[in-house]
Amino acid sequence: MTRVVIDAMGGEIGVGPTVAGAAELSLESDSIQMILVGDARLITETLGSLSHDSRRIQVAHSSPVSTDGTTKTNASIEVAMDILARGGADALVTAGHTDTLVAMATDRLKYLPGIRRAALAAVHPTEQRHGPKEDPFALLLDVGATQTASAEDLVSFAVMGSAYAQIISANPRPSVALLSNGKNLTHGTPAIQQAHEHLSRHPAVHFVGNVEGLDLPRGSVDVVVCDGFVGSVVFAMLEGVTEVVTDLARDAYARKFLWRLGLTMLSQGLRQLRVMTDWRQYGGAPLLGFESVIIKADSRSNARAIRNAIRVANKAIEHDLSGQIRRGMMPVD
Amino acid sequence: MTRVVIDAMGGEIGVGPTVAGAAELSLESDSIQMILVGDARLITETLGSLSHDSRRIQVAHSSPVSTDGTTKTNASIEVAMDILARGGADALVTAGHTDTLVAMATDRLKYLPGIRRAALAAVHPTEQRHGPKEDPFALLLDVGATQTASAEDLVSFAVMGSAYAQIISANPRPSVALLSNGKNLTHGTPAIQQAHEHLSRHPAVHFVGNVEGLDLPRGSVDVVVCDGFVGSVVFAMLEGVTEVVTDLARDAYARKFLWRLGLTMLSQGLRQLRVMTDWRQYGGAPLLGFESVIIKADSRSNARAIRNAIRVANKAIEHDLSGQIRRGMMPVD
Repeated sequence: MTRVVIDAMGGEIGVGPTVAGAAELSLESDSIQMILVGDARLITETLGSLSHDSRRIQVAHSSPVSTDGTTKTNASIEVAMDILARGGADALVTAGHTDTLVAMATDRLKYLPGIRRAALAAVHPTEQRHGPKEDPFALLLDVGATQTASAEDLVSFAVMGSAYAQIISANPRPSVALLSNGKNLTHGTPAIQQAHEHLSRHPAVHFVGNVEGLDLPRGSVDVVVCDGFVGSVVFAMLEGVTEVVTDLARDAYARKFLWRLGLTMLSQGLRQLRVMTDWRQYGGAPLLGFESVIIKADSRSNARAIRNAIRVANKAIEHDLSGQIRRGMMPVD
Repeated sequence: MTRVVIDAMGGEIGVGPTVAGAAELSLESDSIQMILVGDARLITETLGSLSHDSRRIQVAHSSPVSTDGTTKTNASIEVAMDILARGGADALVTAGHTDTLVAMATDRLKYLPGIRRAALAAVHPTEQRHGPKEDPFALLLDVGATQTASAEDLVSFAVMGSAYAQIISANPRPSVALLSNGKNLTHGTPAIQQAHEHLSRHPAVHFVGNVEGLDLPRGSVDVVVCDGFVGSVVFAMLEGVTEVVTDLARDAYARKFLWRLGLTMLSQGLRQLRVMTDWRQYGGAPLLGFESVIIKADSRSNARAIRNAIRVANKAIEHDLSGQIRRGMMPVD
């Protein structure tokens, strides 16, 4: 039985989608116990209007969000993090703000042995497929937890990303690369060059060298490692590209009936483009590095996205993600 | 009369397209004097087979490229750079390797007053239009000359990018932003935060704050500034996205006649996508920071791209790009 604590007030989405996602999942899975954290009255009311299995869902109350001038305290994530830190849950799911989540996790949780900084990992759509399930996604980390990463941090990100891909994509030997401005060892910042050297002889990582920005949309490797500054710029750019393609399509769609025909055919053919329009909803991004499992769902998640995020948290626990990372971080003999 | 020295042996393209581009331009413009540098016999032979105005084209000989084991000396760019450094030309155009070009320029040329590092600026396609000519491109710099940039470097890049956009896009007041991982002054590396502060009160730059990766394909500003590492990763990614979209379209095109119809209609409508397929050919990237004008053409340039690059060099000289940058770098009163 996996116990997942869920921040029900995080993100821009309000209580509705979070509670709905949990309610749906309670009817599907009997291996997940959920704790919804937030305004208890509101959550209970929302739950009451949805079919759900009440044996699988508990509610933990948090004070309503208080605003004093400009500062906004987000009590639900605090209460949820406390439950996780005290061992009242194995995993946490939130659609709340990344910076708050990272700050709170760093403050309250223990890092896994050898890890000094957390990494947020996110999938993005690629042209090439990945792993035995032929996923049209690759994993990118860090996308915003650790702005500047040392060589050691980058190496630990590689271990963590590899472990996560092994579990979530059932990929026994994911290929891992460093994101740089050229293929050679001589390219990149000093941290990247040093990490490159370490990873070249790392027993737990199938390191294939550097990739360039060019390779991200192509998806030539399964896991791409970079620091949080570069990762968040690059990841936001992938979002921007998606939006532009969608805008162009919508614009054309509206303009002319013939185009409508053209675009309909196109959209049937180019599944990748469709996938791109809602890939953020595919299960959330793990915040890696801690003893517990933490999944950050997109701040605009719908019920399905929240349900997927809870499922991913459960999968990570069932397949012992922390143990997998721990083994990967063992010192080289 | 603008004197442009052209590296005729640079890049992957060989002498053919470079000489053809120069030959074409010699018939069009009587304000540009060109010096083609490379194997004189080969250049003269190639020129002989093309219509051109011989009064506008000189040839300067460089030793044939010699290879000793693994090292390859590219003599043509050296000879061309010498001609520029000695004042024998006002501008240089090359399709050769960026790193070689930057190293050689740094070694032989003088920086403009106040500039400590060079920046390579490149245009990329955007959803939004820019300037009075409604260009579907925005300028990004640095994309690979200065891997790690200080706050002062970023400020000088902003001045240089602004000056270049003013001249090339006839945009009297281009909007300039720093690329960061968030909109606020508190986001970004210390160098970005400090540059943000300086630029906020810079008299020569219409600074509008930070943009995120999301804004690059959108094109919400005219000039985006970042360090060379981030810029080259991001720029390569834009190339990758272009390739993937093109691949998807080509794939679909081949598969089915109906799709062919759909795609033809689509390609007529979405001009932006077509533009994306050859935007690298639109005139080359200036290497900014030196007294002379240097234009780096894409290494896979065709004759038209080379001709455009020479034209851009001429425009930069005619509109006194160096003077414009010089004035922008004047200390704040």
